[in-house]
Amino acid sequence: MKIGIDMMGGDFAPKEILAGIQQYFEKGNAEIFMIGQEEVITPLLHHYMLPEGKTTLVHAPQVIDMHEHPTRALKEKPESSISTGFKLLATGAIDAFISAGNTGAMLVGSLYSLKPIEGVLRPTISTIIPKENGRTGLLLDVGLNSDCKPEQLNQFAVMGSVYAQQILGIESPRVGLLNIGEEEGKGNLLAQATYPLLSENKHINFIGNIEGRDILVDKADVIVCDGFTGNIILKLAESLFSITHRKNIEHEYFNLFNFENYGGTPVLGISKPVIIGHGISKGLAFMNMIVLAQKMIDKDVMQMMKAEVEA
Amino acid sequence: MKIGIDMMGGDFAPKEILAGIQQYFEKGNAEIFMIGQEEVITPLLHHYMLPEGKTTLVHAPQVIDMHEHPTRALKEKPESSISTGFKLLATGAIDAFISAGNTGAMLVGSLYSLKPIEGVLRPTISTIIPKENGRTGLLLDVGLNSDCKPEQLNQFAVMGSVYAQQILGIESPRVGLLNIGEEEGKGNLLAQATYPLLSENKHINFIGNIEGRDILVDKADVIVCDGFTGNIILKLAESLFSITHRKNIEHEYFNLFNFENYGGTPVLGISKPVIIGHGISKGLAFMNMIVLAQKMIDKDVMQMMKAEVEA
Repeated sequence: MKIGIDMMGGDFAPKEILAGIQQYFEKGNAEIFMIGQEEVITPLLHHYMLPEGKTTLVHAPQVIDMHEHPTRALKEKPESSISTGFKLLATGAIDAFISAGNTGAMLVGSLYSLKPIEGVLRPTISTIIPKENGRTGLLLDVGLNSDCKPEQLNQFAVMGSVYAQQILGIESPRVGLLNIGEEEGKGNLLAQATYPLLSENKHINFIGNIEGRDILVDKADVIVCDGFTGNIILKLAESLFSITHRKNIEHEYFNLFNFENYGGTPVLGISKPVIIGHGISKGLAFMNMIVLAQKMIDKDVMQMMKAEVEA
Repeated sequence: MKIGIDMMGGDFAPKEILAGIQQYFEKGNAEIFMIGQEEVITPLLHHYMLPEGKTTLVHAPQVIDMHEHPTRALKEKPESSISTGFKLLATGAIDAFISAGNTGAMLVGSLYSLKPIEGVLRPTISTIIPKENGRTGLLLDVGLNSDCKPEQLNQFAVMGSVYAQQILGIESPRVGLLNIGEEEGKGNLLAQATYPLLSENKHINFIGNIEGRDILVDKADVIVCDGFTGNIILKLAESLFSITHRKNIEHEYFNLFNFENYGGTPVLGISKPVIIGHGISKGLAFMNMIVLAQKMIDKDVMQMMKAEVEA
């Protein structure tokens, strides 16, 4: 198993990435392809204990900045670590690709360098949602698809269920449709049209509508919504961590809103695992992302999604 | 000035309503029309100190339950306190109407018994949003219009600005468009089409897009969005109060999420003030709603909205 990492992505690259790789090797044993500027990475290597023969440094002379325009950057910097990562992934030289760099470039790369899973209308990104009782759920889409069709939400429910089951370990995940009322027939046109599709979908465990007040309690394991709504919820939830931190409100509950702890988010619905990390990711987050990539490859989550979407 | 109150609406009716009226009269001096079942209210009156000649009891023998179907209930119970309130308001016998009863019935009554302000495409409801620094802003729509058109959001911005200025006392309120990116051109189709309208609108102080992370910080005074997104944010914010309460997290910041403190929310865009209270409203909330109604009449907020929307 070969996992590629962008060594130039994120606010603390490459040092924290190296720290994360080192941490990963305390237990893991995938081969790690470290993609980035040789002259930056090589001098640092002797500070870290990386096992002999398990890492490969792939030189990528260019770097895509956090604030560059994604499409333009990918086009103008074909030798960047992100472009190189996608090339290696597309050709099968690596089995998964991880980056905490330019999110837009990672999304564009995922959508255009890789094939979507056959039958998938639109790939999607999700976030872990912390529950009041300490359990975690999944919310999707969180920004890749700002306008959605009912059929897309129906597929998000399927892909989210596979992910929740295989990766989060939730048996028969409860799927909720985010809405502004409990009964069928409530909500905007999208929610009204999505409800019957979810209701008739035999591949998911649909429990009905979920309101705003239910997001943070343990009512559903997979919550589906359009990417506009989902992104606003995600960023609002993230802001709770910063606000409580600034106000010196110390309680373990708010640590659950430190989304850095969750590592990164995979792009679901494409043929190979791509994991996008927060810009502020540190060692632990990078280790978690490598573990996640390994799990996704091990369980062949992409293949399972394909089977569920097609069936 | 004559303000009508539904004495049968809310979990603590009519006692807490009477307590609120009594509290109001410590400073206020509008005439209060108490609408409800005479046989329930009269025996309680001697427990409260209400000034001579300032209250009128209007008998309404029927009661609309919290969980009744709004349209059906209004039709089948023409003698209910809510139906009676709207009749008095429509005919000019009272100048404002307040209820903490069936929210749906209050909305249906507002839309169908009263005229919308001339030129207003759709009335709207808003919520107060507590800011990190203790100031308050306005978010609208929060559920009356789950699917919106750009022109409607543009009017919400105008009505929200008048309200923020006149009622919240914010000079030149900053208007933000809730969106999933900072730059113009970001977002779903609605946000993309709304941005230029807000941008060109000379009646508001538009400051651009506002992301989910900006909602709880003091970035904008009036945040506009469709009622689907707004309702989910409101209910999510409300749940924070319950969750922190259940977890015994005591900090004054979370008291700001106790939406009961804000009294009630007015329906904006209709010709006369209607204020809808939380079902759990107590004395203080009722007093605040009466004060709000008085302020809206005093400042002739409806007329100002008319002027701004038309101009």
